[in-house]
Amino acid sequence: MNFTANALLSAGASPVMAHAENEVEEMVAFAGALVLNIGTLDDTWVSAMLRAGKKAGELGVPIILDPVGAGATHLRTDAALRILRETKVTLIRGNASEIMALAGASAQSKGVDAAESVDAAASHARALARKVNVPVAVTGAVDFITDGQRIFRVANGHPLMGCVTGTGCGATALIGAFAAVDRDPVSAATTALAYYGLAGERAADGAPGPGTFMIRFLDALHSLTPDDARQGARIQEDAS
Amino acid sequence: MNFTANALLSAGASPVMAHAENEVEEMVAFAGALVLNIGTLDDTWVSAMLRAGKKAGELGVPIILDPVGAGATHLRTDAALRILRETKVTLIRGNASEIMALAGASAQSKGVDAAESVDAAASHARALARKVNVPVAVTGAVDFITDGQRIFRVANGHPLMGCVTGTGCGATALIGAFAAVDRDPVSAATTALAYYGLAGERAADGAPGPGTFMIRFLDALHSLTPDDARQGARIQEDAS
Amino acid sequence: MNFTANALLSAGASPVMAHAENEVEEMVAFAGALVLNIGTLDDTWVSAMLRAGKKAGELGVPIILDPVGAGATHLRTDAALRILRETKVTLIRGNASEIMALAGASAQSKGVDAAESVDAAASHARALARKVNVPVAVTGAVDFITDGQRIFRVANGHPLMGCVTGTGCGATALIGAFAAVDRDPVSAATTALAYYGLAGERAADGAPGPGTFMIRFLDALHSLTPDDARQGARIQEDAS
Repeated sequence: MNFTANALLSAGASPVMAHAENEVEEMVAFAGALVLNIGTLDDTWVSAMLRAGKKAGELGVPIILDPVGAGATHLRTDAALRILRETKVTLIRGNASEIMALAGASAQSKGVDAAESVDAAASHARALARKVNVPVAVTGAVDFITDGQRIFRVANGHPLMGCVTGTGCGATALIGAFAAVDRDPVSAATTALAYYGLAGERAADGAPGPGTFMIRFLDALHSLTPDDARQGARIQEDAS
Repeated sequence: MNFTANALLSAGASPVMAHAENEVEEMVAFAGALVLNIGTLDDTWVSAMLRAGKKAGELGVPIILDPVGAGATHLRTDAALRILRETKVTLIRGNASEIMALAGASAQSKGVDAAESVDAAASHARALARKVNVPVAVTGAVDFITDGQRIFRVANGHPLMGCVTGTGCGATALIGAFAAVDRDPVSAATTALAYYGLAGERAADGAPGPGTFMIRFLDALHSLTPDDARQGARIQEDAS
Repeated sequence: MNFTANALLSAGASPVMAHAENEVEEMVAFAGALVLNIGTLDDTWVSAMLRAGKKAGELGVPIILDPVGAGATHLRTDAALRILRETKVTLIRGNASEIMALAGASAQSKGVDAAESVDAAASHARALARKVNVPVAVTGAVDFITDGQRIFRVANGHPLMGCVTGTGCGATALIGAFAAVDRDPVSAATTALAYYGLAGERAADGAPGPGTFMIRFLDALHSLTPDDARQGARIQEDAS
């Protein structure tokens, strides 16, 4: 949560982290987007997320789901699937293992880190998006975003992003910030991930290790301009 | 909590973060000051805070209240007001929106960030301090500290402080550390905020963004000397 | 938890933080080691830790216990002793005050920071290791590791490590990572603490304060090579 909040603040967004069941509906009423992240989960958090999600659905607030650790434990897989069934999720952002688990594919899991490649997950992501009618973004070396029809790939990013805790959660949160102002979730996820990955590339340039990288990453999220993003983004759309 | 703990350690204090209802009274017995921060709130935390606060009152340990998000949700406004009623709070530190909410003024809120200026909150802060007989510090571009009679303004600080999560909470925690050794809470808050803001100014000098700023801020909290603070503090007392 | 996760990622390990009682057993099944840290404690966490510990015992997964704040409150002392009784702990890592408290010695406590020296704790650590038949590592200026017979001292480290929250927890977590691949817990703890302390020395070299130190510490955990460790480690075994 700490890194995610700082990534959002650096990018110019205004995050609130709330989990008490008796206040999430009020908080959602202030929000441009709701991010449901099951990283630090227990049963009371699931209830609060469902309540926040239902309110967001009523208000038309976009909901981005991060199914952290889906496939690793039943609690997490079940919580993610239940959120998908009971709320109007706008987009799912996960790593390859998590997306494969939600698609019902047998996937290797090693806890909350991906044990599968984005390529292995691509067809499952497309099937999942069609089945639940929710766009899906799979992040990894090359990110893969699809609503079941359109497919975008984003080749920005750097391996050091995997050495800092919360960078996956931060990507989801940033998609939320973009979705607050871009009502096409596929476009919001694609541009957010290009911007995020580009910041990662800048931060990695000359960084002696993950600590310095993490700090420069926040700096880069703050200083990247729209022109930088246009020039540096490596987005490719698959011809259908 | 992570940033707050590091800010206190950098400043030479010795923080403990505890929230279990069945240990807070014992923890308070070790403490030079008790900071009650409602940032990560649910009902069990409210109970623990009340219990810790009552014990602190018995022992004469100063209590600093940070009403994070008061005005944004009923849970938070009610929790802050209940802590004020049921424990002997020594000083309240909040942003303009939070202080206006506690004073019963109608204030704009956008979650946990201030949507009102310190100037707009000043008269409400003074009224609140008089009504509950507890000094109030409103932080923002220029901090405003009052016990209802005396008024101090602190012009130290830097806008990058708003780009790092936990800097408001850190200010409250640092006031707690100062209150542990300065039994005049108005003086403790004024000097703590000048020192904190001065560290922020130093950290911002040449910082390329919020990440680097955050790290240099911890460095500055560690390295500032009493002489630096005396020379750099921009404290002004209102003539009555 | 934030710093600990980043320290493990920087060192090349793959951490998962989980606390829900209904998923810890599944998570343990993926784990090379289980670290039980009572830093952020309440009753539900104690239950989850016992359940995770029992499963780890069945699976032969090494368990490293960090008794944060033992001696400061009954909740913490009791929780640590209960974990020791009810699960097969592989090694205990604590500061001097915590180890003395578990050994039943009367020790000064000031919350979660040590108020006693490693030297004062050494004989108690040895007695504790013999009594519960679990090796003990006491960290401080010079770390002390014993299984009740063998004694190792590690003279690596730097005082700035005490100015960053989570460095003690990070040491325990790193011992867990080493214990996953080294089935002699005394050896795992000794080499992990030498490596960790050496990273601290590198990070402190020229650091203007705790913020920069913390970042360079993560960099150093990432970049230290086995050769660096062999050359820089200051490990001494007591002749028996």
